[in-house]
Amino acid sequence: MIKSNYFCIIMAGGIGSRFWPMSRANYPKQFLDILGTGETLIQQTFKRASRFCPEENIMVVTNKDYVPLVKKQITGIKEDQIIAEPARRNTAPCIAYASFRIMSKDPNAVMVVAPSDHLIEKEDSFAEVMGFALETAEKDQSLITLGMKPNRPDTGYGYIQFMDQGDARVKKVRTFTEKPDLELATKFLESGDFLWNSGIFVWSGKTILHALEKHLPEMYQTFDEGQDIYLTDKEKEFIDRAYPSCKNISIDYGIMEKADNVHVIPSDFGWSDLGTWGSLYTHIPLDKENNAVVGKNVILSNSRDNMISVSGEKLVVLQGVDDLIVVEKGDVILICKKEEEQEIKQVVNNIKFEKGDRYI
Amino acid sequence: MIKSNYFCIIMAGGIGSRFWPMSRANYPKQFLDILGTGETLIQQTFKRASRFCPEENIMVVTNKDYVPLVKKQITGIKEDQIIAEPARRNTAPCIAYASFRIMSKDPNAVMVVAPSDHLIEKEDSFAEVMGFALETAEKDQSLITLGMKPNRPDTGYGYIQFMDQGDARVKKVRTFTEKPDLELATKFLESGDFLWNSGIFVWSGKTILHALEKHLPEMYQTFDEGQDIYLTDKEKEFIDRAYPSCKNISIDYGIMEKADNVHVIPSDFGWSDLGTWGSLYTHIPLDKENNAVVGKNVILSNSRDNMISVSGEKLVVLQGVDDLIVVEKGDVILICKKEEEQEIKQVVNNIKFEKGDRYI
Repeated sequence: MIKSNYFCIIMAGGIGSRFWPMSRANYPKQFLDILGTGETLIQQTFKRASRFCPEENIMVVTNKDYVPLVKKQITGIKEDQIIAEPARRNTAPCIAYASFRIMSKDPNAVMVVAPSDHLIEKEDSFAEVMGFALETAEKDQSLITLGMKPNRPDTGYGYIQFMDQGDARVKKVRTFTEKPDLELATKFLESGDFLWNSGIFVWSGKTILHALEKHLPEMYQTFDEGQDIYLTDKEKEFIDRAYPSCKNISIDYGIMEKADNVHVIPSDFGWSDLGTWGSLYTHIPLDKENNAVVGKNVILSNSRDNMISVSGEKLVVLQGVDDLIVVEKGDVILICKKEEEQEIKQVVNNIKFEKGDRYI
Repeated sequence: MIKSNYFCIIMAGGIGSRFWPMSRANYPKQFLDILGTGETLIQQTFKRASRFCPEENIMVVTNKDYVPLVKKQITGIKEDQIIAEPARRNTAPCIAYASFRIMSKDPNAVMVVAPSDHLIEKEDSFAEVMGFALETAEKDQSLITLGMKPNRPDTGYGYIQFMDQGDARVKKVRTFTEKPDLELATKFLESGDFLWNSGIFVWSGKTILHALEKHLPEMYQTFDEGQDIYLTDKEKEFIDRAYPSCKNISIDYGIMEKADNVHVIPSDFGWSDLGTWGSLYTHIPLDKENNAVVGKNVILSNSRDNMISVSGEKLVVLQGVDDLIVVEKGDVILICKKEEEQEIKQVVNNIKFEKGDRYI
């Protein structure tokens, strides 16, 4: 049942540098139809949220530079549903600001916090879990996170260990572990009590503000000073000053790993953070030589296990090459050995240093 | 000494498909500054010819489509120095037509026939050899070819075996061998009496017409019918009809391999036919990871032994890749394993079949 105090915070301020050059600083991943489905990731995320939350209660938090993109892609979104960040400060300030603002609207708010650029394949299952999580968060003072049942020892995800409490659907969290190495990830997978950290959270407004006050008191203080200012015409001026002063810290590190009222709902709704070309590769149909191709004019000859993304009309020919990521977009061409894709972020930094923002 | 009956035929009708997509059908290799020297290959070839031949006697034979390119690149060239082929028919018809036409100008002509798209590094040595070859061809009824002293068992070249005649500078040819396999090429190199076939020929007009009459009588007949028409305003009409009717055959196969008055001058003037990316690679400065880069905005990281050619402003990033040929030009990107470059020709044919001429 969708209740009027259900809210959703869609976090859409990321720069998507791991998907450079497909994702560009002025047009990042969440605004792209990265899988070739006909909808961008943020459009899918918004539509998904409308299944468990009144549409007017879906808030998109994004960098000020992306506000026009949000307006363009989310047809009919109202001004007050877009929360603009004047600076990049990671997820804790983003969630703190949005939560304070939502609490000004409705002190009984219960909310889902979700990234805008993830993939969820089983929409029905997702909506059901969200409904259950919102109900739970409304009655318990719990910080709830969604944990994905792992099916491989992925070293690109964070892991959540839960306490075995029999049949209870909501489990108390024992530990969070950042991206483990393969040996550890394999142990996690075998143990059965580890889940992937999806970065999707559910809590009541009261619970998250209380956690902020306890674990990030300075940040709490900063936003608490705006109590009477949110939703007024003084908000922008206040935020332009307050927001950049916040510590750059993630909600996981700032709160989830420290709080003792953290719970997890083990779930399985076909989730991927689409955080690597490798993860994308598993969601695109392959040709018979295991090439994943997005693009109209790609010709492959004696080439296997490549991942190719070409925008526009450009003809791309691969002859005798394997295991490459090839991306052509605008004025950039990237050719990267698959196993070195984690280096792309560093390359982007170097390009920024050498050539400025032109190609970023 | 440059004599007024010395002529040069520069063959510039090729399509350069092995260098696709740098070389495109409407702008092939000979019209490109492929080595980044500031001059195109045909400009270098024309300038080189002017060292042993009166400039007005240098004839450029090219496909009718490339006539504007020739005019643009060879400043001051006169209309009657450009011989337009109405169809592609390989080297024998091209040389036959040009020879008949030159003989109408000067029945005592002695001529050099040279491709427009080869590299010659030692210009002085080349000019000296040409002078000697022209003198020889004027007094002997010899079909002279220039043979390059091989320094590696290259399987991309044809080979000429000569008869050992002591110190004589001009040697009688024993056999021609098309591109051999590596084993055979190695034997050729060791034997000491094999030379690379440069495709540069020197002969008198009388000698080549006589050879045509003997070995390609139909072709001789076709062009002989134009005796009174060359250099008149009826020439184009005659050629438009006669030329396409000619057999598609190379001068090597049609005459050189059959005639018994073929001689070779062993030479060493830093010649390359620039027929492969591999051969080009050896003429471009390498970075410390052995990458040969032509282009302004190329970034390499953990990448070795690549050959990269980028036109314009496009940024190309290579991460963790080795032994690739990467070419970006216009609306085409080619990524090819070096050892498979001989497949490019077939790929181009397939593209032509699948997509028409747009990308060729």
